[in-house]
Amino acid sequence: MKLENPAPIQWHFSQRAQQLQSSVIRDILKVTVNPDIISFAGGLPSPETFPVERMRAAHDAVLSRVGKVALQYGPSDGYAPLREWIAGSLSTSDSTILPEQVLMLSGSQQGLDLIAKVLIDEGSKVLVETPSYLGALQAFSVYRPNFVSVASDDGGMLPEALEGVADGARLLYSLPNFQNPTGRTMPLERRIALVETCARLGLPLIEDNPYGDLSYRGEPLPKMLNMNPHGVIYMGSFSKVLTPGIRLGYVVAPVALIAKLEQAKQAADLHTAQLTQMVVHEVVKDGFLDEHVPTIRKLYADQCQVMLDALQEFFPKSATWTRPAGGMFIWVTLPKHIDSMELLKEAVQQNVAFVPGAPFYANEPAHNTLRLSFVTVPPEKIRQGVATLGKLIASKL
Amino acid sequence: MKLENPAPIQWHFSQRAQQLQSSVIRDILKVTVNPDIISFAGGLPSPETFPVERMRAAHDAVLSRVGKVALQYGPSDGYAPLREWIAGSLSTSDSTILPEQVLMLSGSQQGLDLIAKVLIDEGSKVLVETPSYLGALQAFSVYRPNFVSVASDDGGMLPEALEGVADGARLLYSLPNFQNPTGRTMPLERRIALVETCARLGLPLIEDNPYGDLSYRGEPLPKMLNMNPHGVIYMGSFSKVLTPGIRLGYVVAPVALIAKLEQAKQAADLHTAQLTQMVVHEVVKDGFLDEHVPTIRKLYADQCQVMLDALQEFFPKSATWTRPAGGMFIWVTLPKHIDSMELLKEAVQQNVAFVPGAPFYANEPAHNTLRLSFVTVPPEKIRQGVATLGKLIASKL
Repeated sequence: MKLENPAPIQWHFSQRAQQLQSSVIRDILKVTVNPDIISFAGGLPSPETFPVERMRAAHDAVLSRVGKVALQYGPSDGYAPLREWIAGSLSTSDSTILPEQVLMLSGSQQGLDLIAKVLIDEGSKVLVETPSYLGALQAFSVYRPNFVSVASDDGGMLPEALEGVADGARLLYSLPNFQNPTGRTMPLERRIALVETCARLGLPLIEDNPYGDLSYRGEPLPKMLNMNPHGVIYMGSFSKVLTPGIRLGYVVAPVALIAKLEQAKQAADLHTAQLTQMVVHEVVKDGFLDEHVPTIRKLYADQCQVMLDALQEFFPKSATWTRPAGGMFIWVTLPKHIDSMELLKEAVQQNVAFVPGAPFYANEPAHNTLRLSFVTVPPEKIRQGVATLGKLIASKL
Repeated sequence: MKLENPAPIQWHFSQRAQQLQSSVIRDILKVTVNPDIISFAGGLPSPETFPVERMRAAHDAVLSRVGKVALQYGPSDGYAPLREWIAGSLSTSDSTILPEQVLMLSGSQQGLDLIAKVLIDEGSKVLVETPSYLGALQAFSVYRPNFVSVASDDGGMLPEALEGVADGARLLYSLPNFQNPTGRTMPLERRIALVETCARLGLPLIEDNPYGDLSYRGEPLPKMLNMNPHGVIYMGSFSKVLTPGIRLGYVVAPVALIAKLEQAKQAADLHTAQLTQMVVHEVVKDGFLDEHVPTIRKLYADQCQVMLDALQEFFPKSATWTRPAGGMFIWVTLPKHIDSMELLKEAVQQNVAFVPGAPFYANEPAHNTLRLSFVTVPPEKIRQGVATLGKLIASKL
């Protein structure tokens, strides 16, 4: 019954499919599975922090107790007790977040796709930080917006820089805590100014917060969500405080937007895995994260310090870098004439990898930048890898 | 720090978001959680068929053995051993499916979204059966195609009806086995003719096959995928043979298309849960489905027969219905003057629910049709519900 020599299909891809490209980061990760390579390229949390036994016990408990419910189709908006827990954890004394403002996602990356799907038309203006999270640029790109990189400094986006460019924009995307890729944090005064400016302009403000709990020194700064629950779209994730491989995140937004996002979610994948949501609720409901997250903070803070010390010791004086107060990344700026994409090719030959900075820029890339992650590399390897990179950079001066 | 009385956002939704509507089926399901209602409306498999203990043991084994890997980020294309298993299970003596043709999905619904994303531009012609699966119409609608309902009969789409309408079409969507919503099956000769016609026209043919294994009498008919692996896009799911709440499906396609779909997958949700894929591989790798699926077939075949007998006994002679050879649905056609949406309102008042047929039509709906599912309702309730419906319909004659 098999056809004999059918002509191969000439695929006619959609215009948006022509925007799609493989992620530079993930393509590099494919190279760095070689165990000899010291990779600062990953965006992966350290598996040392995964509460494996706790997750095993929770799967066991949920499947033993309510297996048939956990394995059946579930509601598109998510598992109600977990949505309640999230709403409670985000509420403050003067700002109550309601469970109906929470939509569960198959990882918070999905929130970027769904938000773009319902808010971006071809050519719509979208405001992003300079540089910005690559995964967000990729997710938004599919819907063919007109990106505007808003002027930013070590504290993130400059609210006053919005005045000239926000007219007609559909959304502003920000990552205020320990940003991917720069590691920088937006100060409190600037958060207030950004929320006020967006509210005045009627501009939806996305607060993407996957790393917020990974503060090295005390509690993270107040969320923009709580400053204006009527205008901020907040995204959270269990990837960095629990485990990423289960793919569980959420978006919090005013109910008018949540209704549209839920419809888009239904069309995209019906609902997020019911078992996963019930297991995570089982794990977090009694305060487990309060004891667990400090152990992650401690590990990452220590490894960050090892890398900062190594940079100080081995990198030439003409390079500069950020000093993160939390999260997983350090951002390095090299002398202008050094292209980090070229540098990567040589570095990989010497068994060290990192992510070049250019892909994180929506518009004019700074080719002399790069991102280093320190969370999955043991301290002695961090020193060794930074020393190798330092020598390589010095040889270009 | 909270803003005082900020103006609420005036949401400016994208044009595609304005297409989005809540699924009629899922909205009805919200009503039918009332345990007094006999619901033939669901598309849910029977939880009696879920191998709960097997799933519990597999989670336990995977998390105990390789927990840190299972809980870490994974590759966008999926867990390699499961992709190999799927490729093997789909290969035949004269048609080899390769693992690199398989992309793992967060449920097969996601395949509909990704395929539409990379193949459909606004106004692109998309060919569908009459009627067709509502979830596919919803997923495709987001990308604003021009749907063409191809003439169909009790054997599904008529290949000869393509001649006039296929010019410039981007894809043809078919569900050949025990179709949702009609329960009908496409005969072998027609499959061959459809594959030949699509190959000649250079038209990508989607074969959506969530129910194929649920054949009541012997093996299902040969897959169109195996008749032309270079031109058929095949979609499969673990929802109906294992459990749906874990959200695991896959798409099989020529590698040129898989590469684009993988990029779209990466932007949409990075990858499908690693733990879920490893657990399902653990469950299926030693032939578990060979013993398990026959128990599902038996249960559904028996309940289908109960409903067919009840329809014969209680429905008026002027109604007709399909006699499925597998799957989960029976499709009823009432006398022309009866609108099943109106009928539903009265039926719900008498504690019986079903899904009206109109939403399953891409173009001109037949308002006198409805879909009945028999798999989650016990036999005595099937008889009782069908009797109630029969009386209600008779009262309209």
